[in-house]
Amino acid sequence: MFQNFDATSDHSQSAARVDRLRADLAAAGLDGFIVPRADEHQGEYIPASAARLEWLTGFSGSAGVAVVLADRAAILVDGRYTLQVRSQVDLGVFEPVSSVDTPLADFLRGAAAGKRIGYDPWLHTSGEVKRLKEALRAVDGELVPVRGNPIDRIWNDRPAPPKGRAVVQPDAHAGRPASEKLAQLSGKLAEAKADLTVLTDPSSVAWTFNIRGSDVPHTPLALSFAIIRTEGRPTLFIDPDKLDAGVRTHLSALAELAEPETFEPALRKEAAERAVGLDPQLAAARLSDLVVEAGGRVVEMADPARLPRAIKNDGEIAGSRAAHLRDGAAITAFLAWLDRQAPGTVTEIGAAERLEALRAEFGERDGQPLRDISFDTIAGSGPNGAIVHYRVNRESDRVLAEGELFLLDSGAQYQDGTTDITRTMPIGTPTAEMREKFTLVLKGMIAISTARFPKGTRGVDLDPLARIALWKAGCDYAHGTGHGVGSYLAVHEGPQSISRRGMAVLEPGMILSNEPGYYREGAFGIRIENLVLVEPAAPVAGGDIDMLGFSTLTLAPIDLRLVEPGRLTAEETRWLDAYHAAVREALSPRLGDADRAWLAAATRSLAKG
Amino acid sequence: MFQNFDATSDHSQSAARVDRLRADLAAAGLDGFIVPRADEHQGEYIPASAARLEWLTGFSGSAGVAVVLADRAAILVDGRYTLQVRSQVDLGVFEPVSSVDTPLADFLRGAAAGKRIGYDPWLHTSGEVKRLKEALRAVDGELVPVRGNPIDRIWNDRPAPPKGRAVVQPDAHAGRPASEKLAQLSGKLAEAKADLTVLTDPSSVAWTFNIRGSDVPHTPLALSFAIIRTEGRPTLFIDPDKLDAGVRTHLSALAELAEPETFEPALRKEAAERAVGLDPQLAAARLSDLVVEAGGRVVEMADPARLPRAIKNDGEIAGSRAAHLRDGAAITAFLAWLDRQAPGTVTEIGAAERLEALRAEFGERDGQPLRDISFDTIAGSGPNGAIVHYRVNRESDRVLAEGELFLLDSGAQYQDGTTDITRTMPIGTPTAEMREKFTLVLKGMIAISTARFPKGTRGVDLDPLARIALWKAGCDYAHGTGHGVGSYLAVHEGPQSISRRGMAVLEPGMILSNEPGYYREGAFGIRIENLVLVEPAAPVAGGDIDMLGFSTLTLAPIDLRLVEPGRLTAEETRWLDAYHAAVREALSPRLGDADRAWLAAATRSLAKG
Repeated sequence: MFQNFDATSDHSQSAARVDRLRADLAAAGLDGFIVPRADEHQGEYIPASAARLEWLTGFSGSAGVAVVLADRAAILVDGRYTLQVRSQVDLGVFEPVSSVDTPLADFLRGAAAGKRIGYDPWLHTSGEVKRLKEALRAVDGELVPVRGNPIDRIWNDRPAPPKGRAVVQPDAHAGRPASEKLAQLSGKLAEAKADLTVLTDPSSVAWTFNIRGSDVPHTPLALSFAIIRTEGRPTLFIDPDKLDAGVRTHLSALAELAEPETFEPALRKEAAERAVGLDPQLAAARLSDLVVEAGGRVVEMADPARLPRAIKNDGEIAGSRAAHLRDGAAITAFLAWLDRQAPGTVTEIGAAERLEALRAEFGERDGQPLRDISFDTIAGSGPNGAIVHYRVNRESDRVLAEGELFLLDSGAQYQDGTTDITRTMPIGTPTAEMREKFTLVLKGMIAISTARFPKGTRGVDLDPLARIALWKAGCDYAHGTGHGVGSYLAVHEGPQSISRRGMAVLEPGMILSNEPGYYREGAFGIRIENLVLVEPAAPVAGGDIDMLGFSTLTLAPIDLRLVEPGRLTAEETRWLDAYHAAVREALSPRLGDADRAWLAAATRSLAKG
Repeated sequence: MFQNFDATSDHSQSAARVDRLRADLAAAGLDGFIVPRADEHQGEYIPASAARLEWLTGFSGSAGVAVVLADRAAILVDGRYTLQVRSQVDLGVFEPVSSVDTPLADFLRGAAAGKRIGYDPWLHTSGEVKRLKEALRAVDGELVPVRGNPIDRIWNDRPAPPKGRAVVQPDAHAGRPASEKLAQLSGKLAEAKADLTVLTDPSSVAWTFNIRGSDVPHTPLALSFAIIRTEGRPTLFIDPDKLDAGVRTHLSALAELAEPETFEPALRKEAAERAVGLDPQLAAARLSDLVVEAGGRVVEMADPARLPRAIKNDGEIAGSRAAHLRDGAAITAFLAWLDRQAPGTVTEIGAAERLEALRAEFGERDGQPLRDISFDTIAGSGPNGAIVHYRVNRESDRVLAEGELFLLDSGAQYQDGTTDITRTMPIGTPTAEMREKFTLVLKGMIAISTARFPKGTRGVDLDPLARIALWKAGCDYAHGTGHGVGSYLAVHEGPQSISRRGMAVLEPGMILSNEPGYYREGAFGIRIENLVLVEPAAPVAGGDIDMLGFSTLTLAPIDLRLVEPGRLTAEETRWLDAYHAAVREALSPRLGDADRAWLAAATRSLAKG
């Protein structure tokens, strides 16, 4: 199994560790220290060796930051983790703070006036350091970069950095040779008038060099840095233990290979009198400091691989379609299985395990084995479904009981594509309220599915279409409508998103999720999620602008027992029936007789009644 | 008449004036000079004495900037003015440039490398100067502030600055005494840790001190600056010739009054060692320069009157409703009159004149005389309707002909409120295409009218609701959906808007326009515009969030001859019928028998068939 259902939270050592940290800080002349969740690549998933925040506090969430002062320690987390942080940290040591009400800069302004606060410049972006410096300066405090993270000094049994095996991503799935991508990035550097740049995001390294790795859970990354130049071959700084002969041959044809330890001195040497492109939102502050110390000049630019990576090519799109056929068949087999179980006999963990086993089975059958799940499965029944970022563990596990809803959000990593799908199912008979709210969520999901929009439209310009039906009913959901999804890479990928913050223009080839929801605290959660691909839309008679639209990639039935047909417009019913017909046609050949019969009933036409 | 229909464009002196400017620049050691349209208050309407761009180039549009270099001169305008600029300027002297494709900073980067370019720091905001400085520095050029605008030196018959009469805005319409507003602004200054600020926007002065003026067309402004302090009385720098005894008494109770000439020395004296709040998007760069020269510190903050001015109080809302009743009756009388004229007998100017006369008549009858129109009436028939910012003049005037559409966008200034309404009418029988497109525009307009949305929603989050019906038909409109509207103040007011750029949160009390459109170049234009008020929405059963919504202020029929009932949903038809019933009920008592009968037919229920 790729998912660990143990309740891992352990804060028994927290008080002692904070004491040791404080002693270390005092010796260094610091009044406090910031411990972010991030590693030096600013990724969503980090290796065990970088889990400093969890080691110190017990908090295992994917975002948060602790501030340890001499007489006070706080942990700042956002709304997703309000409950979790209170259950995981020692509340006698760490005071939980809402990072929405009190962002880190505000917290420091209030708590660290006149103080010298240390930070590890490898673990913060230069954009963030700039904000924090200004905040502290305003209250006569000082933000002090430290060399050598004090946590690492006191973390005796700290795991070694990962040495996960890297593999070549075949051109058939990558869609373009790495040499061509490197030429494209060099061109972008020249446009930005930079001599070189550092790829700090391992997703960018993976995409550019057509490799995948296994250093962190659920995302196939080989942690590394790369220097890309306007002129000349790039250099890839990667642990040689990660590379077998095949990968080494592939990479050596593209780049100089160097030990990770040589990255910092190499950049220092090369940066002198050069213009070095760095992404202020992604690159560690240490890198811009180093460039300036070396006598170079920082050119602020977006990671040049970010946008081309987001715009999938034909090979990546074909791979994603194949992955979604396979994944949809596994999901459908799961849904049919679930429907055959009596209410009260399946647990959340049991469901997640069954689904993972089916994905593995359908992957094997297809010659595309399940490489990983793309994130920890969210399997929330009843009130657990209302916790938006719920992760089931053995303590929170519940039986799927009669009269409840079951929200299942899961995804897979196959070599040809990454999937992410949510379905919500009634266990037994749903209430009228459940059906009403499900139908409103479905209307939002269909509004995105059927949207057409001109070139230049950003995700922020579509987000309200998914919400207006809920808004009119006095409801909303406290998360974005959609995130970008990588190609056998991160399940959360920028710059594209459909949300209040989605300022990136949607370009043909981008893959996004479409996942409105509704959550009634203590009662139930509803979310319906498909992945969609941005494509040119077919012209309409009488129209005068070329439009874009979405093609749906995800193939799995949407539970009709939760739909109130009378609340759907004719256009919405048409979409749902057409979607179900496409699902039935695509998946039936891949299913056994019983599941195929189940699918036929599950995808019946509403219009035909 | 408040509107001047003469075609005023005159560029016969342009070449000679540019020659004199070049001689002046050469004597001053400058390689070029920037001539913006703005005055020192950055307003949409400027007095004749500040119309430097028009004097130099002949271009009379509301936005644009000329750059005069030794061997080249260019005028940068946006898409609204592409055609107009070519007809107004001497193309042998000025080269028209699209400011969308080539913003001023980019133009300077390309055309002024290594050059010393002068600018008048009274006519540019500090935010803009910062951008332009960086652009020129990147190409080894220099942006040089000049004291004394060189245009003023060579403009022999330059009009004197206006001395329009100011009047007190009665508390009944202002809704709050000025003393209370001044206390509120002082509180905001203290929050921002500023000792003082300068109100540079005459709308802010007018709102804060409860005065109105008559220095510029169509917006009742008394051009002036005010210094507001955290402690102590404010100072208002205003030409005493604008003030009669009544206004002087009103203002003297609130503030020290000072001559405009004393503003600069007074600010210099007071700024030393003080924190001076300035809005980087509104305040002239000269002010921040002056503060720094004086040894003070600039605190960047939004104009503190901007947001409270946008959130109308009960008195302002009651006034707006009264103004809209009166204005709606005038519009309805106009529409009934137009309908009685035979196709081919009314011209655009004739229509605009008739409407203005009716507004004056209904204003007199109501004891609230028409003070001005709120902008030059857009009266576009046939192809003229497709020019989004069309201003009719005696050269472009057309007869409203059989089979065409007539787009009429107009507004009024009454002491109790500002109006802005667009209606589109068929002259004779409309085509199926006109009816289809009108119905799609109407669907967008109804989508905004019926929207509900949570607190915190911004205008950008509603804009797509107005477009999705058009988008699905392959169409769009190249302007925002709605702008803020003042209370007997500017018809275009920030910070609120419904548009791609609408990042301000919508607050109860804000008034906005709701005006989607569709334009077929060379054929016809469609726009439907109501003003709406943000209000708390009535709770919905089953809802769990307090919602906001819009209450419609504008009262006038929407032409049913252009509606295809079959394209409306049941909800849309319900809204249209309810709106028309409300219009009929509100306006019937104000109309004569013939117009009342016309209105009854024009507002018939679609549901009842």
